[in-house]
Amino acid sequence: MAHAVSPLAPAAFPEMPPIAGVRFATAEAGIRYRNRTDVLLVALDEGTEAAGVFTTSRCPSAPVDWCRAALKGGKARGVVVNSGNANAFTGRAGVATVEKTAAIAAAALGCRPSEIMLASTGVIGEPLDASKFEGVLADCAARATAGPWIGPARAIMTTDTYPKGASATVEIAGVPVSIAGIAKGAGMIAPDMATMLSFVFTDAPIAAGVLHALLQASVSRSFNAITVDSDTSTSDTLMLFATGAAARQGCPAISDAADPRLAAFKAALETVLLDLAHQVVKDGEGARHFVGITVTGATSTASAKRIAKSVADSPLFKTAIAGEDANWGRIVAAVGKAGEPADRDRLAIWFGPHRVAVEGARDPSYSEETVSAYMKNQDLAVRIDLGLGDGTFTAWTCDLTKEYVEINGDYRS
Amino acid sequence: MAHAVSPLAPAAFPEMPPIAGVRFATAEAGIRYRNRTDVLLVALDEGTEAAGVFTTSRCPSAPVDWCRAALKGGKARGVVVNSGNANAFTGRAGVATVEKTAAIAAAALGCRPSEIMLASTGVIGEPLDASKFEGVLADCAARATAGPWIGPARAIMTTDTYPKGASATVEIAGVPVSIAGIAKGAGMIAPDMATMLSFVFTDAPIAAGVLHALLQASVSRSFNAITVDSDTSTSDTLMLFATGAAARQGCPAISDAADPRLAAFKAALETVLLDLAHQVVKDGEGARHFVGITVTGATSTASAKRIAKSVADSPLFKTAIAGEDANWGRIVAAVGKAGEPADRDRLAIWFGPHRVAVEGARDPSYSEETVSAYMKNQDLAVRIDLGLGDGTFTAWTCDLTKEYVEINGDYRS
Repeated sequence: MAHAVSPLAPAAFPEMPPIAGVRFATAEAGIRYRNRTDVLLVALDEGTEAAGVFTTSRCPSAPVDWCRAALKGGKARGVVVNSGNANAFTGRAGVATVEKTAAIAAAALGCRPSEIMLASTGVIGEPLDASKFEGVLADCAARATAGPWIGPARAIMTTDTYPKGASATVEIAGVPVSIAGIAKGAGMIAPDMATMLSFVFTDAPIAAGVLHALLQASVSRSFNAITVDSDTSTSDTLMLFATGAAARQGCPAISDAADPRLAAFKAALETVLLDLAHQVVKDGEGARHFVGITVTGATSTASAKRIAKSVADSPLFKTAIAGEDANWGRIVAAVGKAGEPADRDRLAIWFGPHRVAVEGARDPSYSEETVSAYMKNQDLAVRIDLGLGDGTFTAWTCDLTKEYVEINGDYRS
Repeated sequence: MAHAVSPLAPAAFPEMPPIAGVRFATAEAGIRYRNRTDVLLVALDEGTEAAGVFTTSRCPSAPVDWCRAALKGGKARGVVVNSGNANAFTGRAGVATVEKTAAIAAAALGCRPSEIMLASTGVIGEPLDASKFEGVLADCAARATAGPWIGPARAIMTTDTYPKGASATVEIAGVPVSIAGIAKGAGMIAPDMATMLSFVFTDAPIAAGVLHALLQASVSRSFNAITVDSDTSTSDTLMLFATGAAARQGCPAISDAADPRLAAFKAALETVLLDLAHQVVKDGEGARHFVGITVTGATSTASAKRIAKSVADSPLFKTAIAGEDANWGRIVAAVGKAGEPADRDRLAIWFGPHRVAVEGARDPSYSEETVSAYMKNQDLAVRIDLGLGDGTFTAWTCDLTKEYVEINGDYRS
């Protein structure tokens, strides 16, 4: 299971501020892994507003079903996350496990089970024994502190090779508020509402409905714009919690997503989500290159997105990137298979600053040597101009290497 | 470029009958490869009826555009196929190349250019020089014979590790007629009308419109039911030619697809197409296992097909097969992401005769040891029952191995 840290990893885990009203602790519950933390308990102050977006899988995990129902109240007092077992495709036993886990956590935090959010990540199809949480969660509740964030970021990792976090501090009506988020994910990454797991916290006093609107607006261009392997997970979960603690410093309560005082917060939230999403791709199993694929000139944003994702998901494109080969022919094939309006003879393609194809054929000034040198960069930018309209979208992916196959050929057994 | 022959290859190239009215020859034109044939010329007797199905790519190759137009007449006198260069995404130069190639072949065979069908396979985005065919095609026309079929099957290979052929002999109204077909394909295989390239010939006197109807009916369950890597090619081409030579033995002319005298021919054609399609998957780049994925109990055939192909295309499922891991959790995830009606708690999954999951959870009688032993077979059968309706479909794929990445990481450069 142990793999070397991704060469695309950030140099260090970022400095992240505490969020007033958020405390946490981690523990070793021995769910699957030995000698590492695998449980995270987050304690949230009373009054915390919550929203989430989840996998579009028709076979969601039991915790996803639980959170969808629990979030209807718009309030949360705690979050329990475990790694090593996804509690997905576990039938009635899986439902019993989430009910029991929520009850244990609620007792530990002194709240109702419906105020507990749950997320599990790891192997699918294996029963998860809720008794693993007995004692562990009460102990976590007693130890919970406001930092450091690297602990929770580590406890939720599976095949991730580094912990992922991002934060921002902005002002609402002149009052500073903070955003801090963690994420995990390395494989089964083609989020279609969210990535595997990500939890974002703020002390701003923002109502649950507004939080949901903010997530919906940001996720399309961040977590839903990344792919490692086109395999949407059963457990994708992105939740945003607002403790409202900044109200004590005079921050106004926000109950309307269109409130102009939210402008800086919206931008900062999107930056945090995009940062976390990029970190997930950069930890893509076996990844050696990080690639942004920008489609311009499409007939609509939706069309640009489908084309960008068709390229980002193409195994042949991704293996070419692994081979540091500027194989624009495979980009044309992936554009063609997307089923979106495209005119072969108007296509132009760039690798970084180098235009390799124009008007449906190789650029007359193409230099194999120059482009090959560019392909050795860890971070690569591909641009595809369709020449049809104003639609534009950027998707992010990583290369497909032998290590991806190695990691996934022996993950379970 | 040279890779060991797939372990899934048939023991030998099959014995295949000559088709009266069909002659061919191959040559070394030096298009990309050295010391191997890379051009095939097929000469068809006057009166040959022709039909074809092609890629649904929005960026089709120049030869695909050419054939679509040329087939409107329903007649063909020759076929030129080259390997090593797909003449795809080659702009106006690519169009000039197909026009010049057809003219050279028409002169060699004494027919009109519009009676020449063209197909090219290999690298995308590189100009193809039609002058490579000068002299070569006239020489082929002079040498053309009715066999053996292994020559054409070899000349059209790219990363294929073995030549692919299949045939059948059946009766129409008591008169024996034959079908012989060849195919190539190993990567960029997710056909959406046909596979990379396949050419099927018969001496039966069947009108072009009927040939087209037969192809449409058969291709959904054969070439359109396979995938190696989900990458639909720009050049997918499947053509069926009927010389009508069997009319001289008294075979009646068939001009209606619903003619009951076609029943045995229809079944034989579907068997030949399925055989060729399976051979393409078994030569999937790096393949070590061949997997049939049967979905039953779906709400419709179309729904069963989308779910079967979602599993067949899942990189995580395919790497698990490479690891000989009966990872049904990844099957659940792939069913879930298909977006089709599915009820997690009614799902049942089998590997071969072994039921591993039932009612949305692990089968109580599941034996890791028994199933692990089964997974070591080269040919594997997966069945997924959704428990919702009568829709059923089988898709075929291969595993995703490190060799796939190796082959595709250095194909072009």
